[in-house]
Amino acid sequence: MAVDEGRRITITAIAREAGVSVPTVSRVINGRSDVAPQTRERVEELLRRHGYRRRAARARVSASLIDLVFNDLDSPWAVEIIRGVEDVAHAAGVGTVVSGIHRRTAPTRQWLQNLRARATDGVIFVNSDLAPTVYAELRRLNIPMAVVDPAGVPAMDVPTIGATNWAGGLSATEHLLSLGHRRIGFIAGPRRLLCSRARLDGYRAGLEAAGIAVDDELIFQGDFYHESGYAGGRKLLDLDDPPTAIFAASDQMAFGVYEAVRRRGLRVPDDISVVGFDDLPEDRWSSPPLTTVRQPLTEMGALAARTVLRLAQGEEIESPRVELATELVVRDSTAPRSTG
Amino acid sequence: MAVDEGRRITITAIAREAGVSVPTVSRVINGRSDVAPQTRERVEELLRRHGYRRRAARARVSASLIDLVFNDLDSPWAVEIIRGVEDVAHAAGVGTVVSGIHRRTAPTRQWLQNLRARATDGVIFVNSDLAPTVYAELRRLNIPMAVVDPAGVPAMDVPTIGATNWAGGLSATEHLLSLGHRRIGFIAGPRRLLCSRARLDGYRAGLEAAGIAVDDELIFQGDFYHESGYAGGRKLLDLDDPPTAIFAASDQMAFGVYEAVRRRGLRVPDDISVVGFDDLPEDRWSSPPLTTVRQPLTEMGALAARTVLRLAQGEEIESPRVELATELVVRDSTAPRSTG
Repeated sequence: MAVDEGRRITITAIAREAGVSVPTVSRVINGRSDVAPQTRERVEELLRRHGYRRRAARARVSASLIDLVFNDLDSPWAVEIIRGVEDVAHAAGVGTVVSGIHRRTAPTRQWLQNLRARATDGVIFVNSDLAPTVYAELRRLNIPMAVVDPAGVPAMDVPTIGATNWAGGLSATEHLLSLGHRRIGFIAGPRRLLCSRARLDGYRAGLEAAGIAVDDELIFQGDFYHESGYAGGRKLLDLDDPPTAIFAASDQMAFGVYEAVRRRGLRVPDDISVVGFDDLPEDRWSSPPLTTVRQPLTEMGALAARTVLRLAQGEEIESPRVELATELVVRDSTAPRSTG
Repeated sequence: MAVDEGRRITITAIAREAGVSVPTVSRVINGRSDVAPQTRERVEELLRRHGYRRRAARARVSASLIDLVFNDLDSPWAVEIIRGVEDVAHAAGVGTVVSGIHRRTAPTRQWLQNLRARATDGVIFVNSDLAPTVYAELRRLNIPMAVVDPAGVPAMDVPTIGATNWAGGLSATEHLLSLGHRRIGFIAGPRRLLCSRARLDGYRAGLEAAGIAVDDELIFQGDFYHESGYAGGRKLLDLDDPPTAIFAASDQMAFGVYEAVRRRGLRVPDDISVVGFDDLPEDRWSSPPLTTVRQPLTEMGALAARTVLRLAQGEEIESPRVELATELVVRDSTAPRSTG
């Protein structure tokens, strides 16, 4: 396999085959810019063909780095993932370079150039729908990749770490059923994301297992953001036969429901139970503290870091996709259905 | 000045004076480990004496990096600062290496070693009370430093970016006074931090300017965390003559007050007004959305990044300490005192 070849091939052999000097190959490997483009192309083609592992060589020269790339650092759970990645990387003596790239208009070329120049050991994308050309380019450079994917993106040929969204949706619904709720509203995430569909299907499966028909009137299409939770909460509370509990597919939407309930002069959980999905740090500080489905974001980041570090050392990965377990965290926003 | 000398001195001259080869000086400059300790000492002493700017030289070889170091990545405002630093660094083609070091037992030596090996262009500490030896070591290595300091630490001989805590405390208090409140509770941050004292003094100054005597019974000693806000809220609500408004010196403590109010069966802002301090993203999603004093954390991070990048290029900094303006953000947690 390519991995074993990678252990055998030497820079000297590559230089000989490319008809260039050893320092030139070295410059290409280390991402330096003082190499003619055609020479670089030729050397990289050979490195790739022989499965040369550029990181193992460079690790001796300078401290290692991995890149952690977010679509957007505004994400409420960004810091949870950073903590997981940084913990593992630090323990391995590796620095974590954090970037947010999607706020920028034409970031890709500049970003790839920086990535190459800093000779990163691997790249972790978070929930990224980066252009396929970026993946292709990183693959061409033999840079290991992994994707942390709380949202569910279509399968790529890259190790991906997700969460058990369907099981999470099921457990939240079962919790509300166990408290006696029968009319349970659901505020869904964006339809295009697999995680949204999985959470919705978990909700449906829970109801069906309890012999309760799914009522489409109780399902509101949200987008994970606060405003849509607020809108969904208002709509559901306005129904002739309103739900006694609402399960929102993100914590931010659950807080939107809180606000809809408050403005109606009602109280959580006395008048209506609310469950979220994510387990952001602020759930503990909300009033009341939010019952939610925990996504193990820190653990997902840690596993992604271990994955790229293993790939960088030429190890093989067991499975292209791993889902870590979600877990119901019961706090004070859910209560038995009042039988008044 | 050292800066001008830095432009004149060459690696060749240093090598000659140290009695070593040019590649050896180069290895020292690039933080490589294959140099004998005594040689490294001698070369570094000469580099320092001549004010050699190691970064300007290295920037040609490899992409630049700056290090952003938190005591603890658990901080609720960590990601705000990361965004500010990363934005500026990215625009300059510089990568941002994020670390959290205080959770670790003996991090310093390993961390310094990594820092040196990756040849960082500069280090930004966030609210750090790192050992003086670390500062000394970075100074010895000629690595530029800046401190982002939302908490207020004693002055060091390092450029520091803070916020106008006293003015923030004053503006929150004036806001509550303008709504007719006269008995205003205050939940303070840890006494050892300068920012806590500045916010408290701003509160006192606001009351005194309005001709209201400061009542020590209305001041509760908190620690910035949620639990202490909850405890403070309970204590203040239990007074024989309770306040009609509470100003908490952090957003987390303000959310603790929310919870104390909720458990008492009361409502914010109908029964009591609450103001926080920080302006975390989740303030917009709290129920009700929190009136608070905004610390410009993202701007503070951005300024710190610009500062170390300027220092890395040999520029001089105007002032060792800069405070960026805080700003009152009025949302729904404050209302006129009910005159019922």
